[in-house]
Amino acid sequence: MTDIEKMMQQIGIKARQAARKLAWTDGGAKNAALLAMADALVTGVKDLQRANARDLEAAEAKGLSAAMIDRLRLTDAYIETMAEGIRQIVALPDPVGEINTMRRLPNGLQVGLMRVPLGVLGIIYESRPNVTADAAALCVKSGNGVILRGGSEAYHSNRAIASCLAQGLAVAGLPAEAVQFIDTTDRAAVGALLKSDDYVDVIIPRGGKGLIKRVMAESKIPVIKHLDGLCHTYVDSEADLDMAVELTMNGKMQRTGVCNATETLLVHQAVAETFLPKVAKALNEAGCEMRCCAASQAAISSVAPVTAASDEDWDTEHLAAVLSVKVVKGLDEAMDHIEEHSSRHTEVIVTKNHDRAMRFVREVDSSAVMINASSRFNDGFQFGLGAEMGISTDKLHVRGPVGLEGLTTQKWIVLGSGQLRS
Amino acid sequence: MTDIEKMMQQIGIKARQAARKLAWTDGGAKNAALLAMADALVTGVKDLQRANARDLEAAEAKGLSAAMIDRLRLTDAYIETMAEGIRQIVALPDPVGEINTMRRLPNGLQVGLMRVPLGVLGIIYESRPNVTADAAALCVKSGNGVILRGGSEAYHSNRAIASCLAQGLAVAGLPAEAVQFIDTTDRAAVGALLKSDDYVDVIIPRGGKGLIKRVMAESKIPVIKHLDGLCHTYVDSEADLDMAVELTMNGKMQRTGVCNATETLLVHQAVAETFLPKVAKALNEAGCEMRCCAASQAAISSVAPVTAASDEDWDTEHLAAVLSVKVVKGLDEAMDHIEEHSSRHTEVIVTKNHDRAMRFVREVDSSAVMINASSRFNDGFQFGLGAEMGISTDKLHVRGPVGLEGLTTQKWIVLGSGQLRS
Repeated sequence: MTDIEKMMQQIGIKARQAARKLAWTDGGAKNAALLAMADALVTGVKDLQRANARDLEAAEAKGLSAAMIDRLRLTDAYIETMAEGIRQIVALPDPVGEINTMRRLPNGLQVGLMRVPLGVLGIIYESRPNVTADAAALCVKSGNGVILRGGSEAYHSNRAIASCLAQGLAVAGLPAEAVQFIDTTDRAAVGALLKSDDYVDVIIPRGGKGLIKRVMAESKIPVIKHLDGLCHTYVDSEADLDMAVELTMNGKMQRTGVCNATETLLVHQAVAETFLPKVAKALNEAGCEMRCCAASQAAISSVAPVTAASDEDWDTEHLAAVLSVKVVKGLDEAMDHIEEHSSRHTEVIVTKNHDRAMRFVREVDSSAVMINASSRFNDGFQFGLGAEMGISTDKLHVRGPVGLEGLTTQKWIVLGSGQLRS
Repeated sequence: MTDIEKMMQQIGIKARQAARKLAWTDGGAKNAALLAMADALVTGVKDLQRANARDLEAAEAKGLSAAMIDRLRLTDAYIETMAEGIRQIVALPDPVGEINTMRRLPNGLQVGLMRVPLGVLGIIYESRPNVTADAAALCVKSGNGVILRGGSEAYHSNRAIASCLAQGLAVAGLPAEAVQFIDTTDRAAVGALLKSDDYVDVIIPRGGKGLIKRVMAESKIPVIKHLDGLCHTYVDSEADLDMAVELTMNGKMQRTGVCNATETLLVHQAVAETFLPKVAKALNEAGCEMRCCAASQAAISSVAPVTAASDEDWDTEHLAAVLSVKVVKGLDEAMDHIEEHSSRHTEVIVTKNHDRAMRFVREVDSSAVMINASSRFNDGFQFGLGAEMGISTDKLHVRGPVGLEGLTTQKWIVLGSGQLRS
């Protein structure tokens, strides 16, 4: 066993022990701890910014772009927002211990399901340092221990944040070891974490495709993952075309670098000539490039510049002001295209026709399927779940936004009075 | 790509296409197909027995035991039982399309979760040929396509059963390709199946530890697995000791070769001297060997023969008339022992003390946790789920008996009227 493996084993053992205590801590005590964690961030602002300065220096030395350096900076306002994020989790209901129904069987046994924490989560992220606080707070609220592994460019910041959070837990009388930070930037630690199936119940990667692929290839532990967001908006022949323009614009342009942005617009041939020039004008004015099939190119080219779509465009998550546009014969071709090219994240139909709306909702197999709404709504806050740990494109366990419930599981409980099986 | 890989790709493509059709087939049509599948088995009895004869011959040539050969035999009664098993699935409610709640958000969006099939399941089994019929029927009812891979010793039987089932589907007008049988005993086909992540959504292995380990090591596809059943029954100081004897006997001896049999008996020290001689007498009369800690050995040795337990016994799923027995200081030591040694399948507490019963139910982390009931009740039929695909010891997605609901997932559905995200 290497030193890194030994270190990871120690982290795992401590996290598992702390998680067992946290699992049945009352909701009130967990909430008090969350408030103490938020307070520890606010009172620790000087320490956080001192640690952050080391990351910023390294980033400058590495020649990172000004925008990237800015995303790393722990300003007073950023720290206050992190703390406020934790306080908002206090207000969410405690999922642990919920029992929905206890059925009574003919032999008198009462049988039902109780919601319980998953155990210990390993979270590997490349994002901004606020994920350290968000993820830890969601884990504490759902009764899970957590092992955090952030990106190396935010190492000192993440370490200081995790230390504040553990301190907050201890102040509130809960085990500080429930929040574990991997105190090295050595990549071997990730490898060791992915093999810690004795101590870690679930791995949640939050980052780019490279990270997700590494996790999928190496992990011996079940993974809740968020892969691509290649989302479609289909404008039916019976759509309200003004609404369709607004939903397309909102889906594509309200924010472009996110997983629930619309990447491909599918348009029923019967409305292509009326709808496409309208939407193309708006997209063009907003600075959106269009990559078009032949039919949509013909419909648009007189009102806005267009590019011919390559085969690859139908499979590309642009994450930018770029939209793939295709004319289809009708609902079936639209659904076939989605079946073939979608990443099963979010799909939208715009229509006034009830039968087609219902067919789309039933038959399209994605984490969220919407009628007459913007694809941008597939989000934990928007769905009313509160904070989220990402949006799962997996089919097992949790699909779509991963909120507190997604971080729990259920076990059977059986209340008997001496029943025997015959 | 090897020939086997090409074959598996074709099977995958066909299963995926058929599954897409099956996903939104009405419950009535699926039930009609199930009845036709059951009928096809009954009318196909001669073909089934002809195919079965080839397996029986090979088994005799290989020198398999008479008991094992008997388990392989497709008697008239066995085939009728298989058909009856399918007919019972008809009576279960269709899980697909169920929407539990549609909440209305402040912006007027209606948001909820709809239950949908997983897609295509790959089922790898080593069990008796009836699994071919059970698994296919559960998949059809839950709207999933299925790729079946049975053990080589039942190859001809499984193949003939699968052919009857596909024929039944076709007679009822549903796609026969929804039930695919891997028509080779080549082990490379399993390897190719485990890498078919483009066509297969979930792998369910049903077999011994060797199979499960291979699947876990090779699969690129999420797995719903059933590992060990190392179940504990804890007899508390405040137990009804007569009930505790009955629950121990039923948990251990009602059937010994099954995953929900009790393998370790934990006894509170305060009742060890009264309870252990009683239960030991009954166990001994029933032919059960006891592997005991020092304290339980002392309490039992005057009434029944005992063996000293080795460290290994606490981690052994005996699957036989053998019981590990340990005296503990109280509830906490019992729960610590379970935390360390349990396979998280089923645990039982026998007690009249409410506080301890509730602590046990909350704090013990297994797929089923029971008060005053036999561990043998952790079973789909016993819990009222109908037929099951096994008992999951995983934490994600489905825990305990895997019934129809465990073979489905949920997607978000959103009904809007043009809402935009701001």
